[in-house]
Amino acid sequence: MVDSPRGQPRVAVVGTGLIGGSILLRLHEAGLDVVGWDPDRATRADGRERGVPFPDDLGEAVRDRDVVFLCGPLPSLPETLLTVAKHAGDGCVLTDVGSTKGAVAAFAVAHGLTDRFVPGHPMAGTERSGLTAAVPALFEGAAWVLCPAVEGIGPFRMLSGLIVDAFAARVVPMSPAVHDSVVALSSHVPHLLAGSLAGAVAGADVRDAVLGLAAGSFRDGTRVAGTPARRTADMLFDNREQVLRQLGQVSAFLDGLASALHSQDIDALVALFQRARDLRTALLDRDLVAHRREFPAGGDHRAEVAYLMQLGADGGYLTGCRVDGDLVGYTGHLPEPVDAT
Amino acid sequence: MVDSPRGQPRVAVVGTGLIGGSILLRLHEAGLDVVGWDPDRATRADGRERGVPFPDDLGEAVRDRDVVFLCGPLPSLPETLLTVAKHAGDGCVLTDVGSTKGAVAAFAVAHGLTDRFVPGHPMAGTERSGLTAAVPALFEGAAWVLCPAVEGIGPFRMLSGLIVDAFAARVVPMSPAVHDSVVALSSHVPHLLAGSLAGAVAGADVRDAVLGLAAGSFRDGTRVAGTPARRTADMLFDNREQVLRQLGQVSAFLDGLASALHSQDIDALVALFQRARDLRTALLDRDLVAHRREFPAGGDHRAEVAYLMQLGADGGYLTGCRVDGDLVGYTGHLPEPVDAT
Repeated sequence: MVDSPRGQPRVAVVGTGLIGGSILLRLHEAGLDVVGWDPDRATRADGRERGVPFPDDLGEAVRDRDVVFLCGPLPSLPETLLTVAKHAGDGCVLTDVGSTKGAVAAFAVAHGLTDRFVPGHPMAGTERSGLTAAVPALFEGAAWVLCPAVEGIGPFRMLSGLIVDAFAARVVPMSPAVHDSVVALSSHVPHLLAGSLAGAVAGADVRDAVLGLAAGSFRDGTRVAGTPARRTADMLFDNREQVLRQLGQVSAFLDGLASALHSQDIDALVALFQRARDLRTALLDRDLVAHRREFPAGGDHRAEVAYLMQLGADGGYLTGCRVDGDLVGYTGHLPEPVDAT
Repeated sequence: MVDSPRGQPRVAVVGTGLIGGSILLRLHEAGLDVVGWDPDRATRADGRERGVPFPDDLGEAVRDRDVVFLCGPLPSLPETLLTVAKHAGDGCVLTDVGSTKGAVAAFAVAHGLTDRFVPGHPMAGTERSGLTAAVPALFEGAAWVLCPAVEGIGPFRMLSGLIVDAFAARVVPMSPAVHDSVVALSSHVPHLLAGSLAGAVAGADVRDAVLGLAAGSFRDGTRVAGTPARRTADMLFDNREQVLRQLGQVSAFLDGLASALHSQDIDALVALFQRARDLRTALLDRDLVAHRREFPAGGDHRAEVAYLMQLGADGGYLTGCRVDGDLVGYTGHLPEPVDAT
């Protein structure tokens, strides 16, 4: 487990819906000292029935903790962050799981929390919600973004080790800005497309027949439209500039396909779909190579942070982080350089 | 199995890629007398190694058959239909598996084949291709559209029974025009959306990072972009008027989402996503009730065809078709009437 002066860290999970609940259940299953807190009384009762301490008071829940995961809804995050920072000890590492990172990172800067708060985003989930939908294995093999900062490198290293060890997730280091640009394409625009497909069918004259014929492409293409509407709207709203920018790129490609179809240019249509297929093939066939890098544990951390940022931008991830004496060692996987032809 | 004067029908499958190959392997597995044919010599050799007769000559393959499934690529279908109709006996039932039905149905009318040819479309598949990708269970539980016609009601009944019994598929009766309108929404537009998402990422500055962060929504949203480009292009091309019309509806919904996001109207955004979610819920929670209908086996078949068309338009399907003396009995499932509120 994690290298910690006190052995395994004591953890609190604040907000125990699908994501927070899955974090909580996994850490509890792994034998860590973990407590939960949720604003909903019934959820706290449910948590206690599962054998996890759930104090009624948020301040009490986080008071003696080494790590706190902030997992409530996006709009509540800034206020919860301030409350938790006030009640937790100065050495307590704070992180969140929100689906956008720019706003909360800027908020942490404004409130002088960058030495304790590491913005995070586990890229896992289902269209279901609540502690009842939580599953401990949710993050196995999933990407889990953490945003490293020079002044918060210690908390970053500690969380990286914990997340790899406890959740078997792939830690992807990224700046908040790059993260928000990437998830706009990898997650937020897909929610817009799924919503548009499902929403158009809802109003179509052939609605019932479409439901009767729905095969794989429709089921896959509408799955995330099953996400609670408010959760999806909050997520998109929080990242609206990047979402609209990336949607512009996707719409331009769609216009190209429609134009080729309209003008009956079959060769252009095939060529565009071939580009799309090559990307899908690249997604499935990524060749990753293991690597290891070391940095001085102390001193100037700019080279370390630059290495981490580049790793994430290149599509790589960390598989471990260990501080050993004067050195910090990262192990990870990095895609082989793509042939540009 | 099927009620046939000669017991189980003798079948030929012409074109043994993913769909045809899966039909062939399933019928072979079920013990029917089935032969295959494919223009590709290596595919014929592969088929023979699997223990299925594969004559080199197409005419020979279909000569003494009761049913022929035409499963080649869409552009080759009209010519193959004429060749097979010429070599097969007059009593041989012909059907196809093409992803659009209007053009081939009109072609059959023009060539006087409506008493023998039943346009068909099994709504199953994967993004893979070829006989090597074929799996006998591909159609279990899948919708399989058949287009009934008054003058071809005998072949329709026979095929309905065969497809339910041999493939455990849900037979959905529909007119060619309704089918093409429905699949434009349920299958063809989803291919356009998946292609646009994958194609835009292919050209994005954050391409590598997107591949690194791709989670469920991106994987689901791009899956059918893995389909061979030519196959997707042919499918869309063949149904381009309906595809462009339905794409207009989906694009309008997408514009509404983007507009709500742009104007920061969170309530409008939530309301639109709620409509989409309701449709997704309706897809997963459809309540179907069993029913049974009988018609005179002989005489005027217009009421029978009208019943069948309505069943498909309402999102229902057949689970059986039996001719028993003077009566033909259909069993099926029909959605419960939807509350319009």
